[in-house]
Amino acid sequence: MSELRQDPATKRWVIIASERARRPHQFVATVNRAPVPEYDPSCPFCPGNEGKTPPEVYAVRSDGSADSPGWSVRVVPNRFAALSPDTPLEIRRPDICTSIGGYGAHEVIIEAPQHNLTLATMPRAHVEQVVAATLHRLTTLGRNRSFAYVAKFRNHGAAAGTSLVHPHSQIIATPIVPAEVRNEIEEARRFYDDRVHCVYCTIIAEEMEEGRRVVLEAPEYIVITPFASRFPFELMIIPREHASSFLMGHHQSTAWIAEALHRTVRLLYLAANNPDYNLVIHTTPLRDTCEDYYHWHVEVLPRLTTPAGFELGTGMYITTAVPEETAEYLRDFVPKVDEDP
Amino acid sequence: MSELRQDPATKRWVIIASERARRPHQFVATVNRAPVPEYDPSCPFCPGNEGKTPPEVYAVRSDGSADSPGWSVRVVPNRFAALSPDTPLEIRRPDICTSIGGYGAHEVIIEAPQHNLTLATMPRAHVEQVVAATLHRLTTLGRNRSFAYVAKFRNHGAAAGTSLVHPHSQIIATPIVPAEVRNEIEEARRFYDDRVHCVYCTIIAEEMEEGRRVVLEAPEYIVITPFASRFPFELMIIPREHASSFLMGHHQSTAWIAEALHRTVRLLYLAANNPDYNLVIHTTPLRDTCEDYYHWHVEVLPRLTTPAGFELGTGMYITTAVPEETAEYLRDFVPKVDEDP
Repeated sequence: MSELRQDPATKRWVIIASERARRPHQFVATVNRAPVPEYDPSCPFCPGNEGKTPPEVYAVRSDGSADSPGWSVRVVPNRFAALSPDTPLEIRRPDICTSIGGYGAHEVIIEAPQHNLTLATMPRAHVEQVVAATLHRLTTLGRNRSFAYVAKFRNHGAAAGTSLVHPHSQIIATPIVPAEVRNEIEEARRFYDDRVHCVYCTIIAEEMEEGRRVVLEAPEYIVITPFASRFPFELMIIPREHASSFLMGHHQSTAWIAEALHRTVRLLYLAANNPDYNLVIHTTPLRDTCEDYYHWHVEVLPRLTTPAGFELGTGMYITTAVPEETAEYLRDFVPKVDEDP
Repeated sequence: MSELRQDPATKRWVIIASERARRPHQFVATVNRAPVPEYDPSCPFCPGNEGKTPPEVYAVRSDGSADSPGWSVRVVPNRFAALSPDTPLEIRRPDICTSIGGYGAHEVIIEAPQHNLTLATMPRAHVEQVVAATLHRLTTLGRNRSFAYVAKFRNHGAAAGTSLVHPHSQIIATPIVPAEVRNEIEEARRFYDDRVHCVYCTIIAEEMEEGRRVVLEAPEYIVITPFASRFPFELMIIPREHASSFLMGHHQSTAWIAEALHRTVRLLYLAANNPDYNLVIHTTPLRDTCEDYYHWHVEVLPRLTTPAGFELGTGMYITTAVPEETAEYLRDFVPKVDEDP
């Protein structure tokens, strides 16, 4: 029997369509990915091609050079930046159509020199370097008082919207707060107004008690298949400690964030055969800290299915995967996530 | 120079990324679609296979038969229905995770007997039959007081989320109002509260005055490339007469709705080489008529690009197509849209 489910945090509805339900193993991509070489001379992110990107703004290197080989993580402005800090922040407001010159920032984190590595297959110590680079750039960009929001995301595979194989993620700083971020925060505020408690803290408590959707747990975080998952194999990392901003969530150590990200993408890699996915950090706007009622988290959205007109028109997703079954399936692979890749 | 633009109706921001802008002709799908036969014996929607679908709920036929060949348009419940009127409308509300049994309706409009026709290539008189079938089913489903919303959409091609080639569209009736519909209506209400005028009526007046984004105009409707288009070749049909509901908008005649739909999809077919697209009717909820401030319309969303993590995480789209350039490109094909397909 099908079921409509409402996400407790965003209030978004999904349809779990059991008439066409598929078992978790049926979603697992059977695509045989073409083998990827460790080095591709035509890749702008491979060592030796540093001149093909704009000059680096951050790098982990053993020496004091720049824009040459010898790095392990490198951050550069996007060569085809959607937004740029060099564009004047000019707001145009004719009667009803508001626009702003493309002011902002768009950076690429080149996560490793090896062309064929991915977040799931690099050593955990290396993932820590990537997390440190991310925190450094988000903190630096966050100091610009003209930026309202900084989005951090990772597109893995063509179905997730990237044509570049080389392991990378992206950062976009915008002069406005995007609509979905506003909505999510607004719903969290409403929940808090009702209950004097953070909705994400409530979800952690309920999910731990319920148990069926929990796939990973640690002292610092839990990973669940959300009750109202929109996508098959959708995963959510929620830090146990209440903090509205990703930038506030790492004060003790970046190690656990690297561990949580690494274990989550490795679980997906192992259980679902390296599917295409998007990974997005949900965090508070820069000048509106929402401290009591918002709670940063990470969404991992595998792209095993194609949203259609119903999804685009209504914002409601139809999914044929049952989150509890997916979690059960995923838990079998947990012992392997901590093995050295 | 890139630009951030805000949609005047939904307040959703997009980024028009000119650094990587492509000219309209560069988006035009170069895919050589495999030739499609007029009849496919394995297709459940082809004549002779009526027994492979649930019994029809509506058909245009010359005789009094049912579930046998001889029809020109046929509506059946979806065999793999996401929602069903036979499921009890049972609301389950534990502490925070609300769910509802899969109560609703999910129907398929089989738009023509010919396997290889599509909305763009069928005669206009036939499109009128499809529109009449749509209105009939939406009206009938709308009488069910347990339905809150009826969505009508069309998925054309694999990138738009359908594996079935046979021309068809779908209707889903839900017991709740989807989040995006609520948001769109809420923003329209805010605009009305400010200006005592409908935002869509305002858009029509502004777009007619501005002119650069208008691609088709007629006494009953205009078709534009929206100011804040999310997708290359995105089109919007806005009826000139203010009516909040699609079901109220046809009182004089269905002919002009068929004309508007047909001309719009034909324009896309001719100018962009038959791209995959979603078509969605935006209309008012069933029990909340929003008469003064909402205005039904149709969105046509070509799927020439893949939304990635930024889009999924923030609701902001990055597009590399400039709406004014797309409109200019499309207008060259307008003389051909009224030629017999």
